[in-house]
Amino acid sequence: MIASYEMKHQVPYYECDATGHQTLAMLFRLLILASEDHSDALGVGTAKIKEYDGGWVIINYAGDVDRLPWENETVTIKTYVEAYNRFFVVRTFEVYDADGKQLVKVKGMFAFMNLTTRKVASIPEPLIAPYQSEESRRLPKVARPQLMANDLAWERLDYRVRFFDIDLNNHVNNAVYFDWLLDPLGGEFLRHHHLVNLKMKYNHEVRAGEKVDSQFIKIEENNQIITHHQIQCQGKIAAEAEFEWKLV
Amino acid sequence: MIASYEMKHQVPYYECDATGHQTLAMLFRLLILASEDHSDALGVGTAKIKEYDGGWVIINYAGDVDRLPWENETVTIKTYVEAYNRFFVVRTFEVYDADGKQLVKVKGMFAFMNLTTRKVASIPEPLIAPYQSEESRRLPKVARPQLMANDLAWERLDYRVRFFDIDLNNHVNNAVYFDWLLDPLGGEFLRHHHLVNLKMKYNHEVRAGEKVDSQFIKIEENNQIITHHQIQCQGKIAAEAEFEWKLV
Repeated sequence: MIASYEMKHQVPYYECDATGHQTLAMLFRLLILASEDHSDALGVGTAKIKEYDGGWVIINYAGDVDRLPWENETVTIKTYVEAYNRFFVVRTFEVYDADGKQLVKVKGMFAFMNLTTRKVASIPEPLIAPYQSEESRRLPKVARPQLMANDLAWERLDYRVRFFDIDLNNHVNNAVYFDWLLDPLGGEFLRHHHLVNLKMKYNHEVRAGEKVDSQFIKIEENNQIITHHQIQCQGKIAAEAEFEWKLV
Repeated sequence: MIASYEMKHQVPYYECDATGHQTLAMLFRLLILASEDHSDALGVGTAKIKEYDGGWVIINYAGDVDRLPWENETVTIKTYVEAYNRFFVVRTFEVYDADGKQLVKVKGMFAFMNLTTRKVASIPEPLIAPYQSEESRRLPKVARPQLMANDLAWERLDYRVRFFDIDLNNHVNNAVYFDWLLDPLGGEFLRHHHLVNLKMKYNHEVRAGEKVDSQFIKIEENNQIITHHQIQCQGKIAAEAEFEWKLV
């Protein structure tokens, strides 16, 4: 049976935005915390992985949001490794309210990176066995954002990397991208729309001293409100995202 | 005897910067959380205060830092109302490590604001009595930053207010100022200096859609390293700070 891990968390005021909901960036920080605690509990945490000169890197996330947690709410985060192959792991994250109702379900595709070569490497067996997941030829799909043409009428805002965006790995923490992606949509949009589906793909690290350009286009058709996003940095696409929204 | 309140907190990775220490902004978010929990526990939390059409606003903070908490460390935050008069409250915050060693001691001067007139009002007796503190003519000093001349060679960086800087009160959360104040000092300085003393004074709210200019000057003399800071917004000084540092 797959080894899963559960973590309870009470959402303090400072994880919430002006709507009283936990921010998406904070939610992802918390999901990663749960996955790290899970790995630690199984004896395959950061220290153990470093013995293999490796680290887990996120490739992409996809998932559904019924609603984001509220201020003061206590939620349970459940996570497990759903499947893996030689190079990739699909980890599932589920967030539940106190009544056991599922609020969020997100899958993340992670790769094992060799920290010396900075390239994807095959996953050492002792680092994956404790999750008691199945090795599979066909991994579950983690949907990617739809690729959008560059000549569309993207709106954009630029963001200078700040010292407090940088984490212990010396690059911009993956959660910071969510603030960069969402902020350009503006307060009016963000107060009156709730996220229902997300697809997020990381392409390149962003580092201290760099500046990014966060671009989006909004598409409303067939009663769907979808925003497509790109984070550009040094002429490359550092991240892409696609968010589906409902009006509130 | 003065009613004090204690809160334990384990510092997750996402409250820390690239040095592995909790950020100053996160520390202050946590101090305010402790004060709110304290007030709630005494039955004089936000809901009760709203019955009087009032709210607490921070005027200034001053204090000493032995060291900021580390990633994964469990700290205890102790807070109590040290003294008050008709208009102001001096609240003390102490942070301790697991061995009971004091890491941080900060005092904050708070005023009671009438939310309709947006002016300081006298503190209703039922809102202050539960803290079991003494009303005193002479409040303990909460040191203010030294005023610096405008014609000095201030260095500066500007910051656009982001949606996620805004809190439920519809202005920039007080903790965000610490990121604005410190970021312009740069990674090189922040990695090699630790804060030992802080003085921080709030003058004006900053709101959605505004842009601030964070300015600083660094003064090294008599073996002291001091940085003086101003946050300018719409031609006014929104906040001032003075930080003392030690080389590490």
